[in-house]
Amino acid sequence: MASIFTKIIDGEIPCYKIAEDENFIAFLDVNPNAKGHTLCVPKQEINKIFDMEEDLYLKLMSFSRKIAKAIEKTIECKRVGVAVVGLEVPHVHVHLIPLQDMDDMRFQRKVSLEKAEFESIAQAIAANY
Amino acid sequence: MASIFTKIIDGEIPCYKIAEDENFIAFLDVNPNAKGHTLCVPKQEINKIFDMEEDLYLKLMSFSRKIAKAIEKTIECKRVGVAVVGLEVPHVHVHLIPLQDMDDMRFQRKVSLEKAEFESIAQAIAANY
Repeated sequence: MASIFTKIIDGEIPCYKIAEDENFIAFLDVNPNAKGHTLCVPKQEINKIFDMEEDLYLKLMSFSRKIAKAIEKTIECKRVGVAVVGLEVPHVHVHLIPLQDMDDMRFQRKVSLEKAEFESIAQAIAANY
Repeated sequence: MASIFTKIIDGEIPCYKIAEDENFIAFLDVNPNAKGHTLCVPKQEINKIFDMEEDLYLKLMSFSRKIAKAIEKTIECKRVGVAVVGLEVPHVHVHLIPLQDMDDMRFQRKVSLEKAEFESIAQAIAANY
Protein backbone atom coordinates (compact mmCIF):
# COMPACT_ATOMS: atom_id res chain seq x y z
CA MET A 1 0.00 0.00 0.00
CA ALA A 2 1.25 3.48 -0.82
CA SER A 3 2.61 5.42 2.16
CA ILE A 4 0.86 8.58 3.28
CA PHE A 5 3.76 10.52 1.75
CA THR A 6 3.33 8.80 -1.61
CA LYS A 7 -0.34 9.80 -1.48
CA ILE A 8 0.75 13.39 -0.84
CA ILE A 9 3.28 13.22 -3.70
CA ASP A 10 0.59 11.78 -6.00
CA GLY A 11 -1.81 14.56 -4.99
CA GLU A 12 -4.33 12.20 -3.39
CA ILE A 13 -3.85 13.91 -0.03
CA PRO A 14 -3.32 17.70 0.10
CA CYS A 15 -0.29 19.26 1.78
CA TYR A 16 1.15 22.66 2.61
CA LYS A 17 3.85 22.47 -0.01
CA ILE A 18 7.04 24.50 0.22
CA ALA A 19 9.09 23.22 -2.71
CA GLU A 20 9.46 20.31 -5.09
CA ASP A 21 11.95 19.09 -7.66
CA GLU A 22 12.18 15.94 -9.75
CA ASN A 23 13.34 13.81 -6.80
CA PHE A 24 12.02 15.45 -3.63
CA ILE A 25 9.19 17.39 -2.05
CA ALA A 26 9.11 19.58 1.07
CA PHE A 27 5.91 20.33 2.95
CA LEU A 28 4.84 21.34 6.46
CA ASP A 29 4.35 18.63 9.09
CA VAL A 30 0.65 18.85 9.99
CA ASN A 31 1.37 17.79 13.57
CA PRO A 32 4.31 20.13 14.13
CA ASN A 33 6.73 20.29 17.05
CA ALA A 34 7.09 24.01 16.26
CA LYS A 35 5.88 26.58 13.74
CA GLY A 36 7.66 25.89 10.44
CA HIS A 37 8.38 22.19 11.16
CA THR A 38 8.95 20.79 7.67
CA LEU A 39 9.40 17.35 6.11
CA CYS A 40 11.71 16.68 3.15
CA VAL A 41 10.72 13.47 1.36
CA PRO A 42 12.11 11.55 -1.63
CA LYS A 43 9.47 10.80 -4.25
CA GLN A 44 10.76 7.25 -4.44
CA GLU A 45 9.23 5.29 -1.55
CA ILE A 46 12.28 4.08 0.36
CA ASN A 47 11.94 2.87 3.94
CA LYS A 48 15.30 3.66 5.55
CA ILE A 49 17.49 6.68 4.81
CA PHE A 50 20.76 4.74 4.92
CA ASP A 51 19.42 2.24 2.38
CA MET A 52 19.22 5.06 -0.19
CA GLU A 53 21.87 5.03 -2.92
CA GLU A 54 24.57 7.48 -1.88
CA ASP A 55 23.92 9.81 -4.82
CA LEU A 56 20.19 10.16 -4.08
CA TYR A 57 20.88 10.42 -0.32
CA LEU A 58 23.32 13.29 -0.88
CA LYS A 59 20.84 15.02 -3.19
CA LEU A 60 18.22 14.72 -0.41
CA MET A 61 20.66 16.24 2.09
CA SER A 62 21.44 19.07 -0.34
CA PHE A 63 17.70 19.69 -0.91
CA SER A 64 17.11 19.64 2.89
CA ARG A 65 19.92 22.17 3.40
CA LYS A 66 18.32 24.61 0.97
CA ILE A 67 14.95 24.19 2.67
CA ALA A 68 16.55 24.65 6.12
CA LYS A 69 18.14 27.90 4.98
CA ALA A 70 14.75 29.13 3.75
CA ILE A 71 13.21 28.18 7.13
CA GLU A 72 15.98 30.08 8.98
CA LYS A 73 15.24 33.16 6.90
CA THR A 74 11.52 32.91 7.62
CA ILE A 75 10.99 31.62 11.16
CA GLU A 76 12.51 33.24 14.27
CA CYS A 77 14.52 30.45 15.91
CA LYS A 78 17.87 29.67 17.52
CA ARG A 79 18.69 27.20 14.75
CA VAL A 80 17.02 24.55 12.58
CA GLY A 81 17.27 21.05 14.05
CA VAL A 82 17.33 17.86 11.99
CA ALA A 83 15.74 14.53 12.85
CA VAL A 84 15.35 11.34 10.86
CA VAL A 85 13.41 8.65 12.71
CA GLY A 86 10.97 6.72 10.56
CA LEU A 87 9.53 4.34 13.16
CA GLU A 88 5.97 5.32 12.17
CA VAL A 89 5.93 6.01 8.43
CA PRO A 90 8.26 3.66 6.45
CA HIS A 91 9.05 6.30 3.81
CA VAL A 92 12.19 8.43 4.33
CA HIS A 93 11.49 11.88 5.72
CA VAL A 94 13.91 14.46 7.08
CA HIS A 95 12.36 16.59 9.82
CA LEU A 96 13.56 20.20 9.82
CA ILE A 97 12.47 21.86 13.05
CA PRO A 98 12.94 25.53 14.03
CA LEU A 99 14.29 25.25 17.58
CA GLN A 100 13.85 27.45 20.61
CA ASP A 101 14.72 24.76 23.13
CA MET A 102 15.37 21.03 23.40
CA ASP A 103 11.67 20.21 23.82
CA ASP A 104 11.15 21.24 20.18
CA MET A 105 13.20 18.13 19.23
CA ARG A 106 11.26 15.64 21.37
CA PHE A 107 8.06 15.07 19.37
CA GLN A 108 6.04 15.38 22.58
CA ARG A 109 5.05 19.04 22.83
CA LYS A 110 3.00 19.86 19.73
CA VAL A 111 1.80 23.14 18.27
CA SER A 112 -1.74 23.62 17.04
CA LEU A 113 -2.20 25.79 13.94
CA GLU A 114 -5.16 26.86 11.82
CA LYS A 115 -5.27 26.08 8.09
CA ALA A 116 -4.66 29.75 7.25
CA GLU A 117 -1.53 29.79 9.44
CA PHE A 118 -0.15 26.65 7.78
CA GLU A 119 -0.80 28.23 4.39
CA SER A 120 0.89 31.50 5.23
CA ILE A 121 3.94 29.75 6.81
CA ALA A 122 4.35 27.48 3.77
CA GLN A 123 4.09 30.46 1.42
CA ALA A 124 6.58 32.50 3.44
CA ILE A 125 9.18 29.71 3.51
CA ALA A 126 8.61 29.00 -0.19
CA ALA A 127 9.22 32.69 -0.96
CA ASN A 128 12.65 32.42 0.73
CA TYR A 129 13.59 29.20 -1.07
CA MET B 1 37.64 28.81 24.00
CA ALA B 2 37.93 25.49 22.21
CA SER B 3 34.77 23.37 22.27
CA ILE B 4 34.78 20.04 24.08
CA PHE B 5 34.83 18.38 20.63
CA THR B 6 37.89 20.37 19.55
CA LYS B 7 39.59 19.17 22.76
CA ILE B 8 38.69 15.60 21.80
CA ILE B 9 39.97 16.14 18.23
CA ASP B 10 43.19 17.62 19.61
CA GLY B 11 43.62 14.64 21.97
CA GLU B 12 43.31 16.73 25.13
CA ILE B 13 40.22 14.78 26.16
CA PRO B 14 40.04 11.02 25.45
CA CYS B 15 37.19 9.48 23.45
CA TYR B 16 35.93 6.09 22.31
CA LYS B 17 36.93 6.66 18.71
CA ILE B 18 35.29 4.77 15.85
CA ALA B 19 36.79 6.39 12.77
CA GLU B 20 38.55 9.51 11.57
CA ASP B 21 39.56 11.06 8.26
CA GLU B 22 41.12 14.39 7.33
CA ASN B 23 37.88 16.32 7.90
CA PHE B 24 35.81 14.36 10.43
CA ILE B 25 35.88 12.16 13.50
CA ALA B 26 33.30 9.71 14.87
CA PHE B 27 33.23 8.62 18.50
CA LEU B 28 30.73 7.28 21.02
CA ASP B 29 28.52 9.73 22.91
CA VAL B 30 29.54 9.24 26.57
CA ASN B 31 25.99 10.03 27.74
CA PRO B 32 24.21 7.80 25.23
CA ASN B 33 20.51 7.51 24.49
CA ALA B 34 21.19 3.89 23.48
CA LYS B 35 24.12 1.52 23.12
CA GLY B 36 26.11 2.55 20.04
CA HIS B 37 24.97 6.21 20.09
CA THR B 38 27.67 7.95 18.03
CA LEU B 39 28.64 11.52 17.19
CA CYS B 40 30.09 12.55 13.81
CA VAL B 41 31.96 15.84 14.10
CA PRO B 42 33.82 18.07 11.62
CA LYS B 43 37.36 18.90 12.76
CA GLN B 44 36.71 22.51 11.84
CA GLU B 45 34.83 24.15 14.72
CA ILE B 46 31.63 25.35 13.05
CA ASN B 47 28.60 26.22 15.17
CA LYS B 48 25.61 25.48 12.91
CA ILE B 49 25.38 22.64 10.39
CA PHE B 50 23.59 24.72 7.75
CA ASP B 51 26.33 27.35 7.92
CA MET B 52 28.83 24.77 6.64
CA GLU B 53 29.93 25.17 3.02
CA GLU B 54 27.84 22.77 0.94
CA ASP B 55 30.85 20.68 -0.08
CA LEU B 56 32.02 20.07 3.50
CA TYR B 57 28.42 19.52 4.67
CA LEU B 58 27.87 16.85 2.03
CA LYS B 59 31.17 15.21 2.95
CA LEU B 60 29.98 15.12 6.58
CA MET B 61 26.70 13.52 5.52
CA SER B 62 28.59 10.96 3.44
CA PHE B 63 30.91 10.18 6.38
CA SER B 64 27.88 9.90 8.71
CA ARG B 65 26.19 7.47 6.29
CA LYS B 66 29.22 5.16 6.33
CA ILE B 67 29.34 5.27 10.12
CA ALA B 68 25.57 4.60 10.32
CA LYS B 69 25.96 1.54 8.11
CA ALA B 70 28.73 0.25 10.39
CA ILE B 71 26.46 0.84 13.42
CA GLU B 72 23.61 -1.06 11.72
CA LYS B 73 25.94 -4.00 11.11
CA THR B 74 27.08 -4.00 14.74
CA ILE B 75 24.17 -3.05 16.99
CA GLU B 76 20.82 -4.84 17.01
CA CYS B 77 18.26 -2.11 16.27
CA LYS B 78 15.21 -1.29 14.17
CA ARG B 79 17.13 1.45 12.34
CA VAL B 80 19.67 4.18 12.99
CA GLY B 81 18.10 7.56 13.77
CA VAL B 82 19.71 10.91 13.00
CA ALA B 83 19.56 14.07 15.10
CA VAL B 84 21.32 17.40 14.75
CA VAL B 85 20.49 19.81 17.55
CA GLY B 86 23.47 21.80 18.83
CA LEU B 87 21.77 23.87 21.54
CA GLU B 88 24.38 22.82 24.11
CA VAL B 89 27.71 22.43 22.29
CA PRO B 90 28.21 25.05 19.52
CA HIS B 91 30.26 22.69 17.33
CA VAL B 92 28.41 20.69 14.66
CA HIS B 93 27.71 17.08 15.65
CA VAL B 94 25.48 14.54 13.95
CA HIS B 95 23.93 12.10 16.44
CA LEU B 96 23.53 8.57 15.06
CA ILE B 97 21.31 6.59 17.42
CA PRO B 98 20.41 2.88 17.17
CA LEU B 99 16.64 2.92 17.69
CA GLN B 100 14.31 0.45 19.34
CA ASP B 101 11.56 2.97 20.00
CA MET B 102 10.82 6.68 19.88
CA ASP B 103 12.19 7.28 23.37
CA ASP B 104 15.68 6.53 22.02
CA MET B 105 15.37 9.81 20.04
CA ARG B 106 14.30 12.00 22.97
CA PHE B 107 17.56 12.58 24.88
CA GLN B 108 15.74 11.90 28.14
CA ARG B 109 16.18 8.18 28.82
CA LYS B 110 19.91 7.53 29.08
CA VAL B 111 21.94 4.34 29.14
CA SER B 112 24.75 3.79 31.64
CA LEU B 113 27.79 1.85 30.38
CA GLU B 114 31.12 0.84 31.85
CA LYS B 115 34.39 1.92 30.25
CA ALA B 116 35.03 -1.63 29.00
CA GLU B 117 31.60 -1.68 27.30
CA PHE B 118 32.24 1.64 25.56
CA GLU B 119 35.60 0.32 24.39
CA SER B 120 34.21 -2.92 23.02
CA ILE B 121 31.29 -1.17 21.26
CA ALA B 122 33.63 1.37 19.63
CA GLN B 123 35.97 -1.40 18.50
CA ALA B 124 33.10 -3.49 17.12
CA ILE B 125 31.65 -0.58 15.11
CA ALA B 126 35.14 0.41 13.91
CA ALA B 127 35.69 -3.15 12.68
CA ASN B 128 32.54 -2.87 10.53
CA TYR B 129 33.51 0.54 9.14
